[in-house]
Amino acid sequence: MRPSGRNLSEMRPISIETGVMRHAEGSCLIKVGGTHVLCSASVEEKAPPFLRGTGKGWVTAEYGMLPRATNTRNRREAAAGKQGGRTVEIQRLIGRSLRAGVDLRALGERQIVVDCDVIQADGGTRCASITGGWVALRLAMNKLIAADLVTSDPLLDNVAAVSCGIYAGQPVVDLDYAEDSEAGTDGNFVMTGAGQLIEVQMSAEGATFSRPQMTELLDLADAGVAKLVEAQKAAI
Amino acid sequence: MRPSGRNLSEMRPISIETGVMRHAEGSCLIKVGGTHVLCSASVEEKAPPFLRGTGKGWVTAEYGMLPRATNTRNRREAAAGKQGGRTVEIQRLIGRSLRAGVDLRALGERQIVVDCDVIQADGGTRCASITGGWVALRLAMNKLIAADLVTSDPLLDNVAAVSCGIYAGQPVVDLDYAEDSEAGTDGNFVMTGAGQLIEVQMSAEGATFSRPQMTELLDLADAGVAKLVEAQKAAI
Amino acid sequence: MRPSGRNLSEMRPISIETGVMRHAEGSCLIKVGGTHVLCSASVEEKAPPFLRGTGKGWVTAEYGMLPRATNTRNRREAAAGKQGGRTVEIQRLIGRSLRAGVDLRALGERQIVVDCDVIQADGGTRCASITGGWVALRLAMNKLIAADLVTSDPLLDNVAAVSCGIYAGQPVVDLDYAEDSEAGTDGNFVMTGAGQLIEVQMSAEGATFSRPQMTELLDLADAGVAKLVEAQKAAI
Amino acid sequence: MRPSGRNLSEMRPISIETGVMRHAEGSCLIKVGGTHVLCSASVEEKAPPFLRGTGKGWVTAEYGMLPRATNTRNRREAAAGKQGGRTVEIQRLIGRSLRAGVDLRALGERQIVVDCDVIQADGGTRCASITGGWVALRLAMNKLIAADLVTSDPLLDNVAAVSCGIYAGQPVVDLDYAEDSEAGTDGNFVMTGAGQLIEVQMSAEGATFSRPQMTELLDLADAGVAKLVEAQKAAI
Amino acid sequence: MRPSGRNLSEMRPISIETGVMRHAEGSCLIKVGGTHVLCSASVEEKAPPFLRGTGKGWVTAEYGMLPRATNTRNRREAAAGKQGGRTVEIQRLIGRSLRAGVDLRALGERQIVVDCDVIQADGGTRCASITGGWVALRLAMNKLIAADLVTSDPLLDNVAAVSCGIYAGQPVVDLDYAEDSEAGTDGNFVMTGAGQLIEVQMSAEGATFSRPQMTELLDLADAGVAKLVEAQKAAI
Amino acid sequence: MRPSGRNLSEMRPISIETGVMRHAEGSCLIKVGGTHVLCSASVEEKAPPFLRGTGKGWVTAEYGMLPRATNTRNRREAAAGKQGGRTVEIQRLIGRSLRAGVDLRALGERQIVVDCDVIQADGGTRCASITGGWVALRLAMNKLIAADLVTSDPLLDNVAAVSCGIYAGQPVVDLDYAEDSEAGTDGNFVMTGAGQLIEVQMSAEGATFSRPQMTELLDLADAGVAKLVEAQKAAI
Repeated sequence: MRPSGRNLSEMRPISIETGVMRHAEGSCLIKVGGTHVLCSASVEEKAPPFLRGTGKGWVTAEYGMLPRATNTRNRREAAAGKQGGRTVEIQRLIGRSLRAGVDLRALGERQIVVDCDVIQADGGTRCASITGGWVALRLAMNKLIAADLVTSDPLLDNVAAVSCGIYAGQPVVDLDYAEDSEAGTDGNFVMTGAGQLIEVQMSAEGATFSRPQMTELLDLADAGVAKLVEAQKAAI
Repeated sequence: MRPSGRNLSEMRPISIETGVMRHAEGSCLIKVGGTHVLCSASVEEKAPPFLRGTGKGWVTAEYGMLPRATNTRNRREAAAGKQGGRTVEIQRLIGRSLRAGVDLRALGERQIVVDCDVIQADGGTRCASITGGWVALRLAMNKLIAADLVTSDPLLDNVAAVSCGIYAGQPVVDLDYAEDSEAGTDGNFVMTGAGQLIEVQMSAEGATFSRPQMTELLDLADAGVAKLVEAQKAAI
Repeated sequence: MRPSGRNLSEMRPISIETGVMRHAEGSCLIKVGGTHVLCSASVEEKAPPFLRGTGKGWVTAEYGMLPRATNTRNRREAAAGKQGGRTVEIQRLIGRSLRAGVDLRALGERQIVVDCDVIQADGGTRCASITGGWVALRLAMNKLIAADLVTSDPLLDNVAAVSCGIYAGQPVVDLDYAEDSEAGTDGNFVMTGAGQLIEVQMSAEGATFSRPQMTELLDLADAGVAKLVEAQKAAI
Repeated sequence: MRPSGRNLSEMRPISIETGVMRHAEGSCLIKVGGTHVLCSASVEEKAPPFLRGTGKGWVTAEYGMLPRATNTRNRREAAAGKQGGRTVEIQRLIGRSLRAGVDLRALGERQIVVDCDVIQADGGTRCASITGGWVALRLAMNKLIAADLVTSDPLLDNVAAVSCGIYAGQPVVDLDYAEDSEAGTDGNFVMTGAGQLIEVQMSAEGATFSRPQMTELLDLADAGVAKLVEAQKAAI
Repeated sequence: MRPSGRNLSEMRPISIETGVMRHAEGSCLIKVGGTHVLCSASVEEKAPPFLRGTGKGWVTAEYGMLPRATNTRNRREAAAGKQGGRTVEIQRLIGRSLRAGVDLRALGERQIVVDCDVIQADGGTRCASITGGWVALRLAMNKLIAADLVTSDPLLDNVAAVSCGIYAGQPVVDLDYAEDSEAGTDGNFVMTGAGQLIEVQMSAEGATFSRPQMTELLDLADAGVAKLVEAQKAAI
Repeated sequence: MRPSGRNLSEMRPISIETGVMRHAEGSCLIKVGGTHVLCSASVEEKAPPFLRGTGKGWVTAEYGMLPRATNTRNRREAAAGKQGGRTVEIQRLIGRSLRAGVDLRALGERQIVVDCDVIQADGGTRCASITGGWVALRLAMNKLIAADLVTSDPLLDNVAAVSCGIYAGQPVVDLDYAEDSEAGTDGNFVMTGAGQLIEVQMSAEGATFSRPQMTELLDLADAGVAKLVEAQKAAI
């Protein structure tokens, strides 16, 4: 029933290649099916102004998409002179999600900027960004630990995200573009390795959804995130 | 336990005064406790470009906050030269939520812009905007119907929204600013009069949350939205 | 002869309600006929950079208009990405006018920002903003005096403003929108309670005006401002 | 008493050289004392959108200042990314003033853009811009007439402007920078060749002013503008 | 003598992998040493406005750099709200260079946008962008030819670019970052497969250069571009 | 053969008038044929942030063009809200070129901003800006030397620039607009008084060029710059 022939609960193939950007403290190229995102973590030895003197650090994220990552060329945001509403929303989500898994005090007064740049898009780019962004963050943290710059590991648990939605009346996991553009309801679940929820964003686009459907979507997310966490562990 | 002395499931007083802006096709001033939002609906007899010739209309929303709606003065966004990320996120949410309750084909090729301007803020401004914005939209639709510009009612059901969160370890509904700024998890539920879900946005800020907690929050939202829908019905 | 049936020298009804914004140090809702403006004064315990170390304070103003304050919806300036020329001109006028009635040295090194947001427009919004803005400023000054933060009253006199113009060949006071959009000449007079001039702005739009007409307009303004100052005194 | 040794009612030397820009339909370099402004008028055979099909034309103005026209270098507005509030105010004034002397219907559906660029500033740049801008406009109109593109002269009368103010307690005309920066009150009068008023802008900066002072300033302006109109006539 | 141990006339290893972006009409990943650039060509069936009705098409280019392509993270231009001067200069150069090898009439009224995004930077990013951008363009042209959308090949010859400079007093080719940041003079040569010059940009940064040195640099460029053209041919 | 009737190697008449801007430390009006540029040098007793504490100064440039400097009116960049790509490219070139002739250490920790504003354009505005900008810089340096603010002359040699190109198949020097807009190849050479090269920018627009042609262009530039340097010397 799914355009790709997948089962309702079947994820696309996941691949995570680390160390792909020579200059970054941590980096990876994550591929979830046809969605490819380059993630890098940059350590800056200076916290943002609102944290100066608090002993706490910060993790933030920026998101971008190459103009031709999509089927039709999108206008370059730098040329347009501003980041669109969708970009702003996504990068705030990535930053918030990653921070939920970080002990900012253990990080100390420094900032890590996670850049997620979509090289090729086929649905689920924000989820792939969170999942790959966490890997880049993990690698950068390892470097800080190895250099004795932090003493206890600032990362509390894995953080990963998967999209779910109601496509053709059925709850499905990890929607590709063909599903995403037709789904009556879709959204994203960000969770920890231990299965705690960090962020739930479910949105009706065409058809509202019921409490029982919400429960099914939560179940699908649980299983999907578990697979992503496995892939994160295998990559590091 | 709540700073306001309310029970965990107790909403703040709700008041909706209609017809407060002389020029708008629909308008109201909604007060949910200390949160006051002026909502107006403006009918434009022209659909946005991407809908020209489709026979379908559009509903969109814009959100603003007076600089001194808050405890400390906020910089005016018009002076800053752009809408902040938070504003963009909120107005996209309002627009999406209201559209979920509209039959855009029945509306015909016109656009309704719902403006939500926060006069005074005490938590939950986006939820009050959706709830009040729907009232303004309802009044504007009534005018279109009375003028025989639309033949079948484009509004499918009421749309209202409430915030929920986990404050001091307990699930609570309709958070005020004192709770909102301390909550470990909070978010918003947008629902229809019939209890269908339109939008679920739950976000951990400090502490992740579990599946059972998610269920409790959904229950609180159900009851809270029902109260708001009652207030909407009483106002019209 | 006037669309509203008023005499040439007749002001519209004036109402000033104070204390309408919970968080502001001073606030009021001023209504001059169908023109409604929310005014707030925000005290900031820091003077602008160019006054640091001089012992002098500053008063400045910002002006905005809700998109549907007018008959046809105006584009939101925050969304447009900048304040229009008209807005900039008006807020500079408000700030300059209010400062003319303030002893900046008595204020001390702090800044008061007066925000004037038009909720509903029917001509004369900049004059209502000055008149209402002064009330908000007065209330904020009272708070500073009550808290012993200033020792001598920084306000030298009342400041109020009225529009005058030549409509259908006749000099009239306090133009509403119907008159304003047709007047051959119109403008604004800002004056003190003692009748001194602060600002005279008279502008031909369609028909130039003569010295004798200028004298008549000055006479109308004198009487009009006196009424506004009475209303200010009654409100406080 | 005046820093320059001039009498209270004495203008600075005025010089207007025409035809200084090869490409413009009309141009001049106006010098009023140490204030030098390059003015050009550009005819565009297309009216702005709001006039299409009305048979009426438009005259508008833009104002700029070379970064080193002033004693201390000012930031280039193109580099700053926007025109400052002062610039916007000034160019709106120039446009409004010039239009008051134009029969827009006689002009026909075309637009004339008057550019006023200050090469050197010593007070009164906006007045020199209006006075010189009118000369450029006159020359461009002559070209349109000579080419039979307009049949009756669209210019109704000369338009010129002079600054007046209260300096050291005395009313003075045509303030230079030394006076301008110290004046308690100052402003600008725009008038026609026949002595009708187009624009009066008088503003207290430090000291309010009385009705009798206003009368004295109007008298000074009358005589000053007459001198400028003479210089305009001599130049053409 | 060179930090990398290369001879004065020795290029870095060149690799060009084609077909790396699923959605683009033409794409490649070019690596010149540690400089990696993703290039895509997007065909748009609409010429820019200034060419409508002329029967001619257009080729243009945009350039970007991932924030962490460099040793220290650079601010994302989309977040900064504009493209920097360097970016604008580079993308104008790329567009101009590629157009010099295209018969725009043979292309017909359509536009090809070449996007060059630097994934990793180690000197010479604009040259790699031109060389790789041409490959993407070639592949897109092949698609247009295969689809019978163009009848004669719009590409006149290969276009490739190499940097040259004077490092430690010696003329060298294909500078890496270590050389680039120390060179007294450096610049870029864009040439055709037949050895004709398209663009010469040589710039003294610290030390001026002589006519004989200019000749040596031209010789180095000749040989370097020949190698790049070979790599282009091998890739297609 | 040239539209102006000049020989292939014939420059247009050059005139340099100094001291034309009262407030600037150095200024001139340079005319190269119909191209007129006002150049000023402004000394700021503060180096840019990246040089603080290094003992070195900086020279930078800004470029602008009056809207009606050209045949058709150009949009004012300040009104457009940003400097175009061409402007940015040109001012970077002017700054880089002038700095190549300055000993920044001898200048000390101060900055000189050279503003070049084109009053009238007829081809070669960037070259005239560099040549005239150097004169303004020379005069400002003389003032610093006279005031004993610098002890050894920071200017190493004259800097001047000329355009060359291939017009109607022939190499020509100092192209006017008629030639510039038709040339198959054109560009600019910046050189010192001693004949060393600072910047070579040659660009094919329509027809590529050969090594022998490049040599001819270099020869033309040599002779042209020598003439300009003579004019600089005569002016000071």
